[in-house]
This record gives sequence, C-alpha cells and structure tokens, in this order.
Amino acid sequence: AGDAAAGKEKSAGCMACHGAEGKVKVPMYPNLAGQNALYLQHALQAYKKGERNGGQAEVMKAYVSGLSDADIADLAAYYAGLKP
Amino acid sequence: AGDAAAGKEKSAGCMACHGAEGKVKVPMYPNLAGQNALYLQHALQAYKKGERNGGQAEVMKAYVSGLSDADIADLAAYYAGLKP
Repeated sequence: AGDAAAGKEKSAGCMACHGAEGKVKVPMYPNLAGQNALYLQHALQAYKKGERNGGQAEVMKAYVSGLSDADIADLAAYYAGLKP
Repeated sequence: AGDAAAGKEKSAGCMACHGAEGKVKVPMYPNLAGQNALYLQHALQAYKKGERNGGQAEVMKAYVSGLSDADIADLAAYYAGLKP
C-alpha cells in the first residue's frame, strides 16, 4: 500500500481542483477525501493509461503523466485517509 | 438538477457494487455517498459516451447504456445527498 505522508507531499498539484483537504471547490470535480485507496489508484492508472478521455480527463492526464506507480499509491493512501 | 427520490428508485442496479447507502463493499469501486452531483453526472455521461474504457469501465458502460439523461441526473442527485 502507499505511504500517506509521502502522498501528502506530492498532493500540491491536486489541491487546485480537489481542495486542500480533498474536499473539492469546483463541483464538477470529485471529492477525494475518504474515497477507497484501491479505487483512487485504479482511476489514476486509468488516466495514465489513456483509458479515460475527453473533457476533464485531458486535464487529469496531464497531471498524472509525471507520476510513478509509487506516487500514485502514495497519493491514493493520502486521500483515502482523509475524513470525508 | 435531478430528483433524488426518483434517483433512489433507480439505484437498485448500483447497489451490488456501490453498496446500499453508496458506501462501497468492494474497495476497487468508489464510494458515491456525498460525492458532487455534477461530478457524478459527468462520470456517468463519460461512461455513456465511451470516454472511459478498459477494466471496470466496461462494467459501468453496460449499466449506464440504458440510462436517460434524466435518470443520470436523478441518480447523481440521490447519491450526492447521502451522508459520506
């Protein structure tokens, strides 16, 4: 499983849309706080593998292109650990 | 915006994976309770338009293929209204 503390450090780029505590500011984007870590990993990998396209997915693809599998696991652990 | 009560009636098919109160049983799937309605609509439309593919997306595509835009709005309103 990922390392939540490391995930927190890597989450700076996510905050603009997903909020500081994973609670979104823009209602078009998902709240991440308390979401399932395995699902978050799946979603990030789907963006990275180009399985999600169009609209907002293009923004996410840009963000995740630079993430390693470890980064993804850490970010997923971090957001899953936040209180929804 | 969607009609949450109508959404509840249409949510029978979702429960198998997303749980009775939108809190998932299978950690690979997302919790839906308290998620943003606009995001939920966006995600369901993305499955319906084939913007999300591969793996679990194929399961979702089968479920949403029969949903109208009104069904999607109602389901989104229902799950957004549940306590996370």
